[in-house]
Amino acid sequence: MDLASFLTSLLTSFVIFVALVLVFTWLSSRPGNAPVYYPSLLLRGLDPWEGRGRGTRSPVGWLRQALAASESDVVAAGGVDAAVYLVFLSSVLSILVFSGIVLLPVLLPVAATDNALERSIGLKNGKTAQNFTELERLALGNVQEGSLRLWAFLLAVYLVSFITYFVLWKSYKHVSNMRAAARSTPDIKPEEFAVLVRDVPMPPPDQTIKDSVDSYFRALHPDTFYRSMVATDHTKADKIYQEIEGHKQKIARAEVVYAESKTASKPEGTKPTHRIGFLGLIGKKVDTIEYCNDQIKELLPKLEAEQKTTLREKQQQAAIVFFNRRSAAASASQTLHAQMFDRWTVEQAPEPRQIIWSNLSKKIYERQIRQVVIYAIVFLTVVFYMVPITAISALTTLEKLREKLPFLKVVVDQKEIKTVLQAYLPQLALIVFLALLPSLLMFLSKSEGIPSQSHTVRAASGKYFYFIVFNVFLGVTIGSTLFSALTTIINNPPGIVKMLANSLPGSATFFLTFVALKFFVGYGLELSRLVPLIIFHLKRKYLCKTEDDVRAAWAPGDLGYNTRVPNDMLIVTIVLCYSVIAPLIIPFGVAYFALGWIIAKNQVLRVYVPSYESNGRMWPHMHTRIIAALLIYQTTMVGVILLKKFYYSTVLVPLIPISFIFAYICHMRFYPAFAKTPLEVVQHDVKETPNMDAIYTAYIPACLRPEKLEDVDIFEDAQSHTTSRAPSI
Amino acid sequence: MDLASFLTSLLTSFVIFVALVLVFTWLSSRPGNAPVYYPSLLLRGLDPWEGRGRGTRSPVGWLRQALAASESDVVAAGGVDAAVYLVFLSSVLSILVFSGIVLLPVLLPVAATDNALERSIGLKNGKTAQNFTELERLALGNVQEGSLRLWAFLLAVYLVSFITYFVLWKSYKHVSNMRAAARSTPDIKPEEFAVLVRDVPMPPPDQTIKDSVDSYFRALHPDTFYRSMVATDHTKADKIYQEIEGHKQKIARAEVVYAESKTASKPEGTKPTHRIGFLGLIGKKVDTIEYCNDQIKELLPKLEAEQKTTLREKQQQAAIVFFNRRSAAASASQTLHAQMFDRWTVEQAPEPRQIIWSNLSKKIYERQIRQVVIYAIVFLTVVFYMVPITAISALTTLEKLREKLPFLKVVVDQKEIKTVLQAYLPQLALIVFLALLPSLLMFLSKSEGIPSQSHTVRAASGKYFYFIVFNVFLGVTIGSTLFSALTTIINNPPGIVKMLANSLPGSATFFLTFVALKFFVGYGLELSRLVPLIIFHLKRKYLCKTEDDVRAAWAPGDLGYNTRVPNDMLIVTIVLCYSVIAPLIIPFGVAYFALGWIIAKNQVLRVYVPSYESNGRMWPHMHTRIIAALLIYQTTMVGVILLKKFYYSTVLVPLIPISFIFAYICHMRFYPAFAKTPLEVVQHDVKETPNMDAIYTAYIPACLRPEKLEDVDIFEDAQSHTTSRAPSI
Repeated sequence: MDLASFLTSLLTSFVIFVALVLVFTWLSSRPGNAPVYYPSLLLRGLDPWEGRGRGTRSPVGWLRQALAASESDVVAAGGVDAAVYLVFLSSVLSILVFSGIVLLPVLLPVAATDNALERSIGLKNGKTAQNFTELERLALGNVQEGSLRLWAFLLAVYLVSFITYFVLWKSYKHVSNMRAAARSTPDIKPEEFAVLVRDVPMPPPDQTIKDSVDSYFRALHPDTFYRSMVATDHTKADKIYQEIEGHKQKIARAEVVYAESKTASKPEGTKPTHRIGFLGLIGKKVDTIEYCNDQIKELLPKLEAEQKTTLREKQQQAAIVFFNRRSAAASASQTLHAQMFDRWTVEQAPEPRQIIWSNLSKKIYERQIRQVVIYAIVFLTVVFYMVPITAISALTTLEKLREKLPFLKVVVDQKEIKTVLQAYLPQLALIVFLALLPSLLMFLSKSEGIPSQSHTVRAASGKYFYFIVFNVFLGVTIGSTLFSALTTIINNPPGIVKMLANSLPGSATFFLTFVALKFFVGYGLELSRLVPLIIFHLKRKYLCKTEDDVRAAWAPGDLGYNTRVPNDMLIVTIVLCYSVIAPLIIPFGVAYFALGWIIAKNQVLRVYVPSYESNGRMWPHMHTRIIAALLIYQTTMVGVILLKKFYYSTVLVPLIPISFIFAYICHMRFYPAFAKTPLEVVQHDVKETPNMDAIYTAYIPACLRPEKLEDVDIFEDAQSHTTSRAPSI
Repeated sequence: MDLASFLTSLLTSFVIFVALVLVFTWLSSRPGNAPVYYPSLLLRGLDPWEGRGRGTRSPVGWLRQALAASESDVVAAGGVDAAVYLVFLSSVLSILVFSGIVLLPVLLPVAATDNALERSIGLKNGKTAQNFTELERLALGNVQEGSLRLWAFLLAVYLVSFITYFVLWKSYKHVSNMRAAARSTPDIKPEEFAVLVRDVPMPPPDQTIKDSVDSYFRALHPDTFYRSMVATDHTKADKIYQEIEGHKQKIARAEVVYAESKTASKPEGTKPTHRIGFLGLIGKKVDTIEYCNDQIKELLPKLEAEQKTTLREKQQQAAIVFFNRRSAAASASQTLHAQMFDRWTVEQAPEPRQIIWSNLSKKIYERQIRQVVIYAIVFLTVVFYMVPITAISALTTLEKLREKLPFLKVVVDQKEIKTVLQAYLPQLALIVFLALLPSLLMFLSKSEGIPSQSHTVRAASGKYFYFIVFNVFLGVTIGSTLFSALTTIINNPPGIVKMLANSLPGSATFFLTFVALKFFVGYGLELSRLVPLIIFHLKRKYLCKTEDDVRAAWAPGDLGYNTRVPNDMLIVTIVLCYSVIAPLIIPFGVAYFALGWIIAKNQVLRVYVPSYESNGRMWPHMHTRIIAALLIYQTTMVGVILLKKFYYSTVLVPLIPISFIFAYICHMRFYPAFAKTPLEVVQHDVKETPNMDAIYTAYIPACLRPEKLEDVDIFEDAQSHTTSRAPSI
């Protein structure tokens, strides 16, 4: 890629970005769009414009507000998880800013004043000097082999590593405190009073599972046990419940349509009807309101009967056990209960809203086997996904594309279009390609038998990270199939370092463009929310009848960490790896994470609504992967500098064990407080006497929930043969 | 080694063994030797001959009794640890017996009817048929390359592996139940009411460490916290205490001497005197009784003062915290207390008698660093210990020895002596050599900062296992310096398998003799206790004055797991590795473990006195190492059969992952109950209301212990600025 197409790419991206920001500024100031741009505010009952003066309508108003918001505002709006994601972005930003301050003024002149590229041209004679761009002059490639200038690059690797350690340590400490603070608030959270019990052994035939759970926990925790709720297989009850809900929705819609049809000319209106056959297209025509009411009347007793059967007959070998003190629950969740590990396994209860009921009853051996199988599938996916990627790589040069698809000639031969296409095509192909994967990974992670949504997201995010680093970073860099890379690795493990070192400098410009495209276009789209806006307006116009429908149409969802984090991690890996080879990438990285931070903050404050709260359990995951990126960086740098025939590059080798030791120390020092609940943080008293009934009710699945709160006792008794409730309240 | 010298070796060993057993039978029936042969019985207040009839004096009486003793007798006499050691021996015995039943009748004929050895001789022509012994005919070496007979050997590897899995699984289950039973007895054990707290942060200046421990634990465990005892640096108090005890001993001895000197001829007797200078050789002569009494009078106030200073001023950042319920202590020891992992780390308290006070206050980072340093030292020891071993290997052939030390000619040229020497010399050199190591390893393990004696023993045993397998087994087998082996490993990891496979068959006879020597002579000496017998009689005659002295002279000590277990493990490794190559080793292995089991049982019942009780925590350690031996076996067998140009040997490769999976499943299923205390096993009620004062007192070090039990409160108050005892009892 020459300088012209690089600048074109950059400029186009920037223009698109500016356009999208302007669009955002204009659209977001129109009250009709409030549900798209301020859904989080609306849901929290705040007026987006109230008390904010005209600032909101100025083009930089959102920027000023996002900058002004404190961490506690973020926690209040998006929970600790969102705050931790922002800490992640700002940590990487700090690493890059600190590195850039030293590296750019030092390395760029050192590289630019050397002349390895000219000499190599001189040696080959045949080529002209235009073959290398100004960009390539500013990189490691322009330093002569064995030159003492390489010391500067070598020390830069040390500097970047130590800056990373320093920033990561600070951040881990900060996040750790944030988590502790969040966990020791006086608010009552149901999950802090409960533990999840899995692998409950089958009770003798005269006992229900519920009875055996009760008697087991009452014996072991006589003073603190409150109640238990056995997990049930409520798919059937849920189906009936959903059917009833569907009918209710239909009635609501039909009533709106009916009311609207009562015009002045026709005061009695038209009763809405529909056909009851396939997709409402065939079958008898019925009056919707009447028909649905009949259906509900018919289904309600069925639901009640099914609820009873479910509670009594469909108990599964898992339960949520409630304690009357937070510290008792914290302590119980960390204590080994049974002599045999495959019975009565306890862990912290997930939040009620993120519990995955269908996974609870999976036995420990099943979970283990599923995990192994799924990791095998992921491994195969990572390896074989490379095949199509390689096909695309082969097509990336436009000339080849033109040869293979002659009908494109007309378009491609236009000079401007050619430049733009040449700049974007390979990157676009990659980005589109990657959009297909996350759902598969979420499905696979859920199949592992993980009991909570947030854990599933972390697991999917981890898998995506492997995928993206191996396929995009290594795949593009090495520029060959991962197959041949794998055979190299198997035959000669250190060979991969040499291979990377050989290929890295060549792909610098590609990744520079990749990063720029990601942040300008990606963030522009993110901020302007054009797609949700269009969908919302279309839905409102043609589909939504009731208020509930409208609300469903603008429901913003959560941040989607499972794709967001690995994508950011890819940029971290790329920028770290090129930070010394081509220091010019650092400003791009800074821009990516600075823009990312400010835009994510804006979106957290105004748009996204968290669907769960894991109190920052994502952090250790991010931390480990930043260190993994650092290790890739350090390893390749040893190779890159060695290839320059500079044998002091072995001076870099100690960095690798240092990184491992750093990771180990962080894990030892901070991780336990993420995996377990320290007693210290739950010793604080709660605001008021906890309403244990409410805590218990929070865990009842919607389809089994009794109509009134007083019925909770009946609900519980339905699970056991004897009325076995504890006398304590 | 030819057949004659092998048989000589075997016969000599057997004769020695029979002689030693006869000596034992004769000596142990003499009442004067009771303290040597029945110390454990005497200490438990039992009469060795009571109620046992004349059976005891018959040559096989001890055998009958040992066989008749049940596991609960063993637990009563030697604790769970001894019972677990016997389970270990009997498990290995079962593995070998089951394997032998199938392997011997099948593999021996298969090997003996082939003629690879004769053919190889035939090919080389020059040598006679006497060059290979009958032993070598019966081994894998006699099967021709690529022969279908190798299938039998290949399937035998599978058989042995699955027998091992089966027996290990049964044994782990058995030991696990034994441990649970031992832990749920109604007896009150102080360690079950206590947790060890380390890394206590420095308190503010107006608080003692004791105060801060008290307030921290009272806040977190308001209902169950009883008391705490802060660890102190009591070396100085201990020194004074030992001095007083020394003087008391001297007085006791002097009084006996004085009483004896009161003969009829001289009724007033001679007062014993000694010199107070260096070693009692120089200086003023003083009346011993008077002098020592004065010294004690002088030292007692000093001790009291030092006790006070120690309790108040020399508190260290570690403590034992007591709870008033077993389940509370079990739960607390498993619960994370502090937000930061390097503060307030809790674990199960060790037994009072095995606590290592000086290690308690070591901080977590110090412990980590010490561990790394010590593993580095052990690694270097393992590698460089090989240098002298190699020197000995070079000298093992007697001819070489004769050349180098010509003055030995006279002895060596005698035919009988030559045969015996040739049979024993290399093995003896090895055995003597290995006797030097255990103390070093115990010292190193203690330096790691481990808080309990039993854990130190396990750590030392682990190190010794690495040492013994690498140096003795691999060293002797490969027959070259470990250095060259290491370079092979580094350059080409799979090369080690080929190297082993090449060398293993050649060393078969060496190891056959080695095992025989170990069990005949080793167990003969163990049973007859000749060395302790001689020492006891010498001491009693010349040194012992008082009853206490005599008791000290026959104190039997414990089983010494730190050397015993790795030595047995070496035999396990050897026998497993040769079980298919030279199946004739199986009977030797069976003899080793059968004799070992019966003799160890006898010694546990009558001789050794356990110095601590870890409730079988040694088992997971043994289990893992048996699997390690199995893995060495499986790996080498792939190589050995491959070298026979039998390419189906890859059929064996799946065994290696199967072993890992087996180890993982066992670890997951059984290990948690060894590392932690399951709540299930401590829920049983204790026999009587626990006497919490007695539990507390058990942990006070001897040198700080107050004279009367009522002073415990004073002792506790001495540690804190305020009287902060809990009102609860």
